[in-house]
Amino acid sequence: MSGLGEFQRGEFQLIDWIRRRSSHHRQVPVGIGDDAALLAPTPGEEVIVTTDMLMDGRHFIVGQTLPELIGRKALAVNLSDIAAMGGRPLAAFISWALPRHGGRELAQALWTGISELAETFDVAIAGGDTNSWDGPLVISVTLVGETVGGRRILRSGARPGDWIFVTGPLGGSLSGRHLAFMPRVREALDLVQRVLVTSMLDLSDGIASDVRHILDQSGVGATLEAHSIPIHQDVDHSLPSSEKLQRALTDGEDFELLFTVSPIEGERLLAHPPKGWMPIRIGTIDEELGCRLRTKTGVETLARGGWEHSID
Amino acid sequence: MSGLGEFQRGEFQLIDWIRRRSSHHRQVPVGIGDDAALLAPTPGEEVIVTTDMLMDGRHFIVGQTLPELIGRKALAVNLSDIAAMGGRPLAAFISWALPRHGGRELAQALWTGISELAETFDVAIAGGDTNSWDGPLVISVTLVGETVGGRRILRSGARPGDWIFVTGPLGGSLSGRHLAFMPRVREALDLVQRVLVTSMLDLSDGIASDVRHILDQSGVGATLEAHSIPIHQDVDHSLPSSEKLQRALTDGEDFELLFTVSPIEGERLLAHPPKGWMPIRIGTIDEELGCRLRTKTGVETLARGGWEHSID
Repeated sequence: MSGLGEFQRGEFQLIDWIRRRSSHHRQVPVGIGDDAALLAPTPGEEVIVTTDMLMDGRHFIVGQTLPELIGRKALAVNLSDIAAMGGRPLAAFISWALPRHGGRELAQALWTGISELAETFDVAIAGGDTNSWDGPLVISVTLVGETVGGRRILRSGARPGDWIFVTGPLGGSLSGRHLAFMPRVREALDLVQRVLVTSMLDLSDGIASDVRHILDQSGVGATLEAHSIPIHQDVDHSLPSSEKLQRALTDGEDFELLFTVSPIEGERLLAHPPKGWMPIRIGTIDEELGCRLRTKTGVETLARGGWEHSID
Repeated sequence: MSGLGEFQRGEFQLIDWIRRRSSHHRQVPVGIGDDAALLAPTPGEEVIVTTDMLMDGRHFIVGQTLPELIGRKALAVNLSDIAAMGGRPLAAFISWALPRHGGRELAQALWTGISELAETFDVAIAGGDTNSWDGPLVISVTLVGETVGGRRILRSGARPGDWIFVTGPLGGSLSGRHLAFMPRVREALDLVQRVLVTSMLDLSDGIASDVRHILDQSGVGATLEAHSIPIHQDVDHSLPSSEKLQRALTDGEDFELLFTVSPIEGERLLAHPPKGWMPIRIGTIDEELGCRLRTKTGVETLARGGWEHSID
């Protein structure tokens, strides 16, 4: 914060506009307005930090996407990462490179989308860095949270026999849901307070790709049950069912959580589900490495299918 | 981290390159490689968070500035903010929008500059977000630190009678020093462990402008002593002395610390200075609001003089 010697009047005014809208948070004794923010995490908890940068032309297109939704998503993807660690979010830091022309109006709309979602999850906006330039909009959000009950939920804890769950239906997100998804913060806290979650992540690139992070880091394999994969209503209904399944496995940007628990905990979770939502079991962790998909016709290897292009 | 559904092969390779170079830090139990990082601050301390974004064409020019120095500065400005809070830095998070052509080579050079400075201050690089695009380089660094001995050093604690100090000479930074300055992290820790610092900030826009943040937030005024302002050797020697003084007051990007202590603490500090450096007393906090400069010819009002332009 501060620090660059080139603050401009418009930036100062925008920062004032933001500061007037920032509210008190009991775990943020010092927010916007000093050299840095001070946070007071709950004693005994670890601090969780995640950051994501979104750029005009790559993750959204200014002029085609409502700026409120751009701002909302910039915070939402970070909330999803905190949820994936089983954590409670505390404070967000918003940095942006604003186009010189119309930058202030754009920033205020972005801010509206950010702050509404922040309020939903009692997240303070505690700082950031405001700049204008001749380039396209870049928005970078860092979110700080804390563990709950001292529990570390990593990608590396899945064990053979564990049941694999997701928090909701998959596929078709890019038709619009990816801009307005609800990060699974509450669901994650439900889980952490209810069962021993052995591993968890949020689904951003599609389950066929993302599940491998857990398998690789846990040193295990998995078999997914094709008939159990929940297909989102956003997936085109007219598609053949194999293609619908394919979409649910590979579309990406679902931002549902994928997690594993022991069979005993899994039974318990299904018998006494959290209030308001039902975890969906989609498979089992195996000792045998690799990822498999069981369909009506047998068991086949599940390809990654995530998008990978090349830069030089 | 993760989260955007569009990871590219080159980005994956770059992230692997970075991960192989990240080292263990005792207060960072989980760094790069999960949905978020986990930090373990010292019990009883508050967490300090600051963030700065630097953009090609605004804060540096790719092709004219060594990328190692760009990376170094992106971390250094954040280290300076943590120092200004009297804190100890712990973990940095590096997000960048890399030009598609030559992005990986550029990122590796940036990384070299960042990681060398990080090592100097025992800062872990614990996460970030790597993206490529068709726009110019943007680099956004968030730095997390912690208080020392539970002390909150804010801009708002200066009291009438307090002595005003700086940690080093001022002016002429933009001729090159601004890219390679040493953030005053050690000096800040020296101070916090030695005296009761009533207020502190880092000088980014020039003392004539920055001192007002302390005055405004503390509800006080100040008189600076012209003959005591230390002029950096980077200021053009051929200038008349009033112009040299003007440079020291307004050039900016010094990244020295300005701080206040009570007269008793000030006496003690000068009698028993920290090892290796000498705090320089430049003035006194007054009850009378506003900022004044005492010269040989009398006392005059000190104008802000910082740069302010306009965006719409």
